[in-house]
Amino acid sequence: MSDVWNRGAAAVATLTFDVDAESAILARGGTYADHAMTMSHQAYGPDVGVPRLLDLLDEFDIPATFFVPGWVAQQRPGLAARIVERGHEVAHHSYSHRPPTTMSEAEEQADFERALDVFAAQDIEILGHRAALWEATAHTLDLVAQHSLLYDSSLMGDDRPYRVATANRGEIAELPVHWSLDDWEQYAFLPDPHVGSVIESPAKVLDMWCAELDAMRHYRCLFNLTCHPFLSGRPSRAMALRRLIEFALQRGDVTFARCGDVARWAMDTPELPVRGLTPPPTLHFA
Amino acid sequence: MSDVWNRGAAAVATLTFDVDAESAILARGGTYADHAMTMSHQAYGPDVGVPRLLDLLDEFDIPATFFVPGWVAQQRPGLAARIVERGHEVAHHSYSHRPPTTMSEAEEQADFERALDVFAAQDIEILGHRAALWEATAHTLDLVAQHSLLYDSSLMGDDRPYRVATANRGEIAELPVHWSLDDWEQYAFLPDPHVGSVIESPAKVLDMWCAELDAMRHYRCLFNLTCHPFLSGRPSRAMALRRLIEFALQRGDVTFARCGDVARWAMDTPELPVRGLTPPPTLHFA
Amino acid sequence: MSDVWNRGAAAVATLTFDVDAESAILARGGTYADHAMTMSHQAYGPDVGVPRLLDLLDEFDIPATFFVPGWVAQQRPGLAARIVERGHEVAHHSYSHRPPTTMSEAEEQADFERALDVFAAQDIEILGHRAALWEATAHTLDLVAQHSLLYDSSLMGDDRPYRVATANRGEIAELPVHWSLDDWEQYAFLPDPHVGSVIESPAKVLDMWCAELDAMRHYRCLFNLTCHPFLSGRPSRAMALRRLIEFALQRGDVTFARCGDVARWAMDTPELPVRGLTPPPTLHFA
Amino acid sequence: MSDVWNRGAAAVATLTFDVDAESAILARGGTYADHAMTMSHQAYGPDVGVPRLLDLLDEFDIPATFFVPGWVAQQRPGLAARIVERGHEVAHHSYSHRPPTTMSEAEEQADFERALDVFAAQDIEILGHRAALWEATAHTLDLVAQHSLLYDSSLMGDDRPYRVATANRGEIAELPVHWSLDDWEQYAFLPDPHVGSVIESPAKVLDMWCAELDAMRHYRCLFNLTCHPFLSGRPSRAMALRRLIEFALQRGDVTFARCGDVARWAMDTPELPVRGLTPPPTLHFA
Repeated sequence: MSDVWNRGAAAVATLTFDVDAESAILARGGTYADHAMTMSHQAYGPDVGVPRLLDLLDEFDIPATFFVPGWVAQQRPGLAARIVERGHEVAHHSYSHRPPTTMSEAEEQADFERALDVFAAQDIEILGHRAALWEATAHTLDLVAQHSLLYDSSLMGDDRPYRVATANRGEIAELPVHWSLDDWEQYAFLPDPHVGSVIESPAKVLDMWCAELDAMRHYRCLFNLTCHPFLSGRPSRAMALRRLIEFALQRGDVTFARCGDVARWAMDTPELPVRGLTPPPTLHFA
Repeated sequence: MSDVWNRGAAAVATLTFDVDAESAILARGGTYADHAMTMSHQAYGPDVGVPRLLDLLDEFDIPATFFVPGWVAQQRPGLAARIVERGHEVAHHSYSHRPPTTMSEAEEQADFERALDVFAAQDIEILGHRAALWEATAHTLDLVAQHSLLYDSSLMGDDRPYRVATANRGEIAELPVHWSLDDWEQYAFLPDPHVGSVIESPAKVLDMWCAELDAMRHYRCLFNLTCHPFLSGRPSRAMALRRLIEFALQRGDVTFARCGDVARWAMDTPELPVRGLTPPPTLHFA
Repeated sequence: MSDVWNRGAAAVATLTFDVDAESAILARGGTYADHAMTMSHQAYGPDVGVPRLLDLLDEFDIPATFFVPGWVAQQRPGLAARIVERGHEVAHHSYSHRPPTTMSEAEEQADFERALDVFAAQDIEILGHRAALWEATAHTLDLVAQHSLLYDSSLMGDDRPYRVATANRGEIAELPVHWSLDDWEQYAFLPDPHVGSVIESPAKVLDMWCAELDAMRHYRCLFNLTCHPFLSGRPSRAMALRRLIEFALQRGDVTFARCGDVARWAMDTPELPVRGLTPPPTLHFA
Repeated sequence: MSDVWNRGAAAVATLTFDVDAESAILARGGTYADHAMTMSHQAYGPDVGVPRLLDLLDEFDIPATFFVPGWVAQQRPGLAARIVERGHEVAHHSYSHRPPTTMSEAEEQADFERALDVFAAQDIEILGHRAALWEATAHTLDLVAQHSLLYDSSLMGDDRPYRVATANRGEIAELPVHWSLDDWEQYAFLPDPHVGSVIESPAKVLDMWCAELDAMRHYRCLFNLTCHPFLSGRPSRAMALRRLIEFALQRGDVTFARCGDVARWAMDTPELPVRGLTPPPTLHFA
């Protein structure tokens, strides 16, 4: 494998933060807007978590990527701009945080473009996209290409960047994610809506992520970490993130980058695999 | 941030105990009153857990706060008084342990005031409130202010005290809680009603809480711990709580306080953020 | 507290094994008898687990108590007798492993007495009882007293033995159990019927149980451990049990005993609390 | 116990990989073929996981067994052949990954034979079978014997090989599996379809499996490990597998073998228990 996409690093680390705020709950419908505790649990993300995490990134001078739903950017004017001013990338995370697998193509297109309109009105340049709940469809990838974005970051078909051949719109870069590099499965807990079963210790999470980073250095992968400010902005979890960054820096061969940068490097690397999105034939039972 | 609310401590620790007893189960309806094992599981809290925990607090001369549903105080006359006699605060935890999000405003008001009547009849001074299951609504906070209580402790919008602007009744202090500082998610297990999936080791819980306390010292937060006597009164869990207290005392810069005291300090700190309770606009889908 | 019930030991350890075999699954109804894998999973208990655990107990010369459903004793003639021959107690664990909370009083009485008939026919003396899934009702305890058994071991109202005042039949001893001293919550996993979410490491379980034993030595409790041969008979779990026994023996102040012996000691200790089984009044909502 | 079946080793280790790819999801029905993320999550198995795991096995020169659904072999021509060329066994894992407990006998027979046809067309010799989700019925074992396969590996009735007396077709070898030696319960996570609740650290899994291997050396068992390339092919999990292999090799008394070889050894060992598959009589409630 050529070392073009990773610029010679053993592993490239993209720290990404999904700033879902209330949208991750409101998109489930119901009357959750009236649940003051649940709303405060989500508001903690942009109100307390994001400033704390921006300060942490500043300390180490590390660039990151913040995936922000259009509705969140709209509800909190200035939030996206402040993130960009601190040297980070803001990327597309749907408008309403509804997963594409639950929308018609027309609904998804409207939702997708509504977010683009919000960011355009706020002068935020958008280079890439991540589907709500990562639940992308082939149509999602088509929308990404149609709107000339460089990359998507919702699929799991590899642990290095790859290129996706969309149905009608040419190739885009895919920066794959994975459940094991997501703070949601480790930390999220809400009884209503039911989210999460167990709250893990940051020590376990730090240990698991450091082991994955070391293994990804061995296999020369993209360490694409997904965190949520309402989860990883909590004190001891932010401390675990700090220790993860220190661990990566001490290794000496890990490069931190924004997703947009990695997407460009990936598109410059012809050796990366290209994958189509033709769904597998449904199993026909004899 | 001014050091008024925390009186100069790196972190303020409020040890709180929710003495739910049978109410946490009976509020779910059904025929659980006839499930002798389940009832004995809950009765362990006031019968065995509370005396053991009171002795533990005595050993270290640490003040704590006990949130007691009115029904529990009524069923066990003398329980609330004994807690107060040992130097602790008894606070309002609803009458019936039904979460506000499942009651009409009239039902919630009746339930709220019925608990106040029980405590008044027992000469227990009430300074603050915590919603059952933490499921407060804006109306809950209004009730807290309307009855001139100083504080609520059900929301999660910060990890320092803040002030809440209720709709019609002025400001109260909020002493925020969080799932990660609650023994329920770590220890609770019942098959019917279904409660909990995994029983964690006290060693893991102690490690996680010590890490959070250290991180909260770094960020100068309120370490507002919620325990349940029927869970944390068990032998090895009480021992873990003992070690947590020893850990905090050894740090030398942690102040233990009752919730009522912290609420007063918070209301004396104009720099603390004030947050409104206007629910976010429901997401309108394009 | 007088040291009569514990004969002066810091903690008394009753190792108990619930030999449910297929009954724990078949009692759920459905067509599970045809699920060969599930049935083999359960049959492992008496076929492989029990012999291995008997050998382990022999090595240390430690007496234990095996709670056996009548149906299991009937299906595997000689099983109960072999356990008794090795020096252990066989106790009543229902006939069909249906929990009392799901049966009418008449059904429960028939099930209870059917098991007694099986054991009588096999000349197995029965001193005590444990409800299926621990789901005892007040009626269950009445049956225990009515049939002149000495004890029940299904409730959780204390961590020392206590005495239960049954409605019409006088007192029996209660040897309380708890979810945290049960291998089911740590190890059990089946997708259909759905049982368990996480398979824990024996190292975690051993650590947790040793910590509880130490804390119970501190508080002078009954360490009443519930294991299932189809779970704890597996190799590394049997090894963890071996290490737990070694740990207890090294402490030097832990006494291993059969449940029947502890029940007798408890009934000789007037200082132990007596608890009634009157269910709490159902919560009346204002 | 004679040491024939294990050729004198303290434990025999069969590393097995279930190459389910998309079939494990598509067999649940629904529209999952259009869920691009979910499909990419599954495709990772044969696309990235299998090559990585084959390289790992090569490094240590260890033979393994790959259970492949017929549909997967059909969809990815050359996959099964490449596995065989590397010195491993390919075995029968149904055609469509539907569990036998959900099919009529006629459906199961058609599914079973359709897979055999696929492998015959690809010149892959098939010696044994594993049921989808391990959900074998007595009929499944009959099919295994009827088609002259040597072994099944779906049941849990022992932790050493045993022999199964099928209803009409004679004996086959059973190489028993268990939930605690499966990577699924430790690593699998998908929200839709709902799979898994907690993502465990490879460090915990490695520790648990090493402890089980040591205990199995003590009891002279078959360490029959089930991994899935879409799970254990991930970087830090592949590293944990590497460490497990190193641990086993360092012990010096563990033999790695293909399932087919162990099945032959087992059939040469008359001392191994023979078990029938007559389902237990359904519990008749009094």
